[in-house]
Amino acid sequence: MGAPNEGILSEEPLYDPKILERLDFNKVRSKFNPPVSAVRPGEGLRVRPLRRADFHRGFLQLLSQLTAVGDVSEEQFLKRFDAMQSCPNTYYVTVIEDTTNGQVIGSSTLVIEQKFIHGCAVRGRLEDVVVNNTYRGKQLGKLIIMTVTLLAEELNCYKMTLDCKDNLIPLYSSLGYFLEKGNSNYMQIRFDKAPS
Amino acid sequence: MGAPNEGILSEEPLYDPKILERLDFNKVRSKFNPPVSAVRPGEGLRVRPLRRADFHRGFLQLLSQLTAVGDVSEEQFLKRFDAMQSCPNTYYVTVIEDTTNGQVIGSSTLVIEQKFIHGCAVRGRLEDVVVNNTYRGKQLGKLIIMTVTLLAEELNCYKMTLDCKDNLIPLYSSLGYFLEKGNSNYMQIRFDKAPS
Repeated sequence: MGAPNEGILSEEPLYDPKILERLDFNKVRSKFNPPVSAVRPGEGLRVRPLRRADFHRGFLQLLSQLTAVGDVSEEQFLKRFDAMQSCPNTYYVTVIEDTTNGQVIGSSTLVIEQKFIHGCAVRGRLEDVVVNNTYRGKQLGKLIIMTVTLLAEELNCYKMTLDCKDNLIPLYSSLGYFLEKGNSNYMQIRFDKAPS
Repeated sequence: MGAPNEGILSEEPLYDPKILERLDFNKVRSKFNPPVSAVRPGEGLRVRPLRRADFHRGFLQLLSQLTAVGDVSEEQFLKRFDAMQSCPNTYYVTVIEDTTNGQVIGSSTLVIEQKFIHGCAVRGRLEDVVVNNTYRGKQLGKLIIMTVTLLAEELNCYKMTLDCKDNLIPLYSSLGYFLEKGNSNYMQIRFDKAPS
């Protein structure tokens, strides 16, 4: 038996799902055929914020199609969910659910960074985009990317940025992202702490 | 007359300054001549977290040497400072102060992002690096970059990343950052909201 609030908490969204209803997919209509949107992603699909119960709906297994996730326990997952939720207006982990089997089959994250520059502006970052490889060819990659991109705009970001591999440049270019001449370098330094 | 706690609040650091004492500059000794560190940055200089009172010490004027800052009021600045502070373990705005005149003459920010991937890891991002252009040639750019880089390692980030212009590649390369073959693209999309 769980704690009294467990049921309610487990389906509580990471952020207010109403924001998704405000996104104007008309702006990006030309990028989809047939037209889809966060509110109408296609039959048997739903776009929504991450929930705690998604631990049991294959969320981490989905992420492992993107990169190494390691052996994350439910406790660790919930702790990280809570930590994200405790940062106001920062983490917008957004998923696509297959409502026919209740599995999470797509995900992407908008992370918002607060600045002092540009009149104390906020900017967005696109992170951890993944679609279950058995659901290819349904425009779901483009859908989840444009959902969090429009979300960044809706939340008053002055720009959205991403770091990517060479082979993804055509996809992101087709969605309005660009490499700025002389200003498109992503550099990194790795620390000894080997990620699992 | 200010509020009773104004004096205390105004000098409260954005994050615990003790972390800076733990950074191991011996690791990066070869990058500096003469050797400097966050604790010993050079005579008349101090490296420390941002404080609210830095609004009156030229912090925003310094940032305006980097990019457009716009007309930010003290109220806006304090609101943004508070918003950063309300996100636990996220914003590490670090400055260099010239203790002879009390002015902020260098700054750089580590922003930490929480992940589910890599065993619920955290990663760091290097943002908004600037040194007052009348203080060039004192290794202060390298010092403020390595301070927040070592800070990211100290705070258990598995990697630190940055996006930069072509002309800064040699500097960052000399400090251990690298362009990963096939994975070094920084892309962006700009929204209508014109930053001030």
